[in-house]
Amino acid sequence: MSLDRTAICDYFLSLQDSIVTSLEHEDSKRFHEDSWKRDGGGGGRTRVLLDGVTFEKAGVNFSDVSGEFSEEFARQIPGDGRSFTACGISLVIHPRNPFVPTVHANFRYLTRGSRAWFGGGVDLTPYYPFREDVIAFHKIWHKACLEHSNVANYDKLKNWCDEYFFLPHRNEPRGVGGIFFDYLDSNLDEVLSFVKKCGNSFVSSYLPIVKKRKSHEYSEAHKEFQEYRRGRYVEFNLLYDRGTIFGLKTGGRIESILMSLPLKVRWLYDYQPKLGSREAELYDVYLKPKDWAREV
Amino acid sequence: MSLDRTAICDYFLSLQDSIVTSLEHEDSKRFHEDSWKRDGGGGGRTRVLLDGVTFEKAGVNFSDVSGEFSEEFARQIPGDGRSFTACGISLVIHPRNPFVPTVHANFRYLTRGSRAWFGGGVDLTPYYPFREDVIAFHKIWHKACLEHSNVANYDKLKNWCDEYFFLPHRNEPRGVGGIFFDYLDSNLDEVLSFVKKCGNSFVSSYLPIVKKRKSHEYSEAHKEFQEYRRGRYVEFNLLYDRGTIFGLKTGGRIESILMSLPLKVRWLYDYQPKLGSREAELYDVYLKPKDWAREV
Repeated sequence: MSLDRTAICDYFLSLQDSIVTSLEHEDSKRFHEDSWKRDGGGGGRTRVLLDGVTFEKAGVNFSDVSGEFSEEFARQIPGDGRSFTACGISLVIHPRNPFVPTVHANFRYLTRGSRAWFGGGVDLTPYYPFREDVIAFHKIWHKACLEHSNVANYDKLKNWCDEYFFLPHRNEPRGVGGIFFDYLDSNLDEVLSFVKKCGNSFVSSYLPIVKKRKSHEYSEAHKEFQEYRRGRYVEFNLLYDRGTIFGLKTGGRIESILMSLPLKVRWLYDYQPKLGSREAELYDVYLKPKDWAREV
Repeated sequence: MSLDRTAICDYFLSLQDSIVTSLEHEDSKRFHEDSWKRDGGGGGRTRVLLDGVTFEKAGVNFSDVSGEFSEEFARQIPGDGRSFTACGISLVIHPRNPFVPTVHANFRYLTRGSRAWFGGGVDLTPYYPFREDVIAFHKIWHKACLEHSNVANYDKLKNWCDEYFFLPHRNEPRGVGGIFFDYLDSNLDEVLSFVKKCGNSFVSSYLPIVKKRKSHEYSEAHKEFQEYRRGRYVEFNLLYDRGTIFGLKTGGRIESILMSLPLKVRWLYDYQPKLGSREAELYDVYLKPKDWAREV
């Protein structure tokens, strides 16, 4: 059984609108919009804000593509035949202030042959985390799952996120996690409700943190650490990220796919945080999977 | 038939010494050295210079590792069994001045079961290229091949380089090329002579360009374009580079493998060089495979 794709696409389009509007309220700069067509079917609507006051680089992408998987790529995806459709929204927000975390969210509806499923997730990547922010973020996703517990088991989706956003070559999580899911294909109507709940919760999970921390004082050293940690974001997205690889393998628009990469990044050599520093705290306390939603 | 590994390793170690000495003459900063051991066999000697006067980041790595390939990785490598040995030198130099190109070189000797072969290459990645520099660089490698033409066909190795250092997702070469080879396994004594000729030619292919351009005046805009173009270097190394993937898959030392990534990088959104600009010239003239060695 599959759902009404048009209605789902319309929801993702309206979600893009509302998220962009909320983000623009936080920045004096406006998003730039590019609509694009994909050779082979479909296209997208990319919105990017570059070098803003609050956001250094923010991309909120909608895409609705269809076509044929390559034979090689088809082997990695469930379903039958090579025809596919995929629509969804994908966003990454890299703030200027190192005390504001980077956030990523993605929700997508895929079909291949007779199979249809949802995938998605939201995860937070702080540089200088605040305990209360991390807890508040996780509680939002805990609540969204509880309201749709017949299709979304919070513990499963939280652990999936910790496992997915992990850099094996660094033996290090990308950030403090959130939720992640893929191939949710039973009870699709209910899954759609869950996905909408998540989509509609995004702004309330992130913007309060932005408001609270965007004016936090910072030094050049804080900025350098932020740029250094962003290197991990690039490593993850280019080495492991399913969405990035999906886009590259299915001939998506390259500038839309790689809008997830931060504006400024640096790779030091063999950097080690100083014992007892705020930087060491990130590694010692926050880059360790933890049941934040149940902390107080 | 395989060669005397110890003698080959010693050659690579002495090559690392001589290249590092030459580079240190060009910079007031010294290289930092880390010796490391690999779980499972072997280790390496990493030398990195960070934030120097002439070089923003330069890494010259020696490694000599051995062990067992994973089953999955073994499928991608010629030879029999899962035991392997690999020794070699790998270097990437990211200069500070945007008028000096980035350079990469790698020479390695591998064995798997009863098979043994050499691989390697050298390629140049300019930001603001000078025609005479590009020609001079290619002529060095042309000459090295001519002297060992029974094992090194210049046109083949030059084309191999153009094909290998190519970013399919950008439909763009990484730079202006050089030479590349892998799996050279017949007439190994002669191949070793060729590899030594290449190793010993490296300094003369690159340092004259550094000397000529390192004091070229540049603006913040030149620097930004350099940092933007370095993004391509990161994309190539994390998405496609054999050496990087070999290192990650065989449990090499992560900071030594990723020393190839530049110190500072930026990802803009949908950047397009201005018509007729020096930046457009890079794309229009230089990022197109060309038989530079035979230009005058």
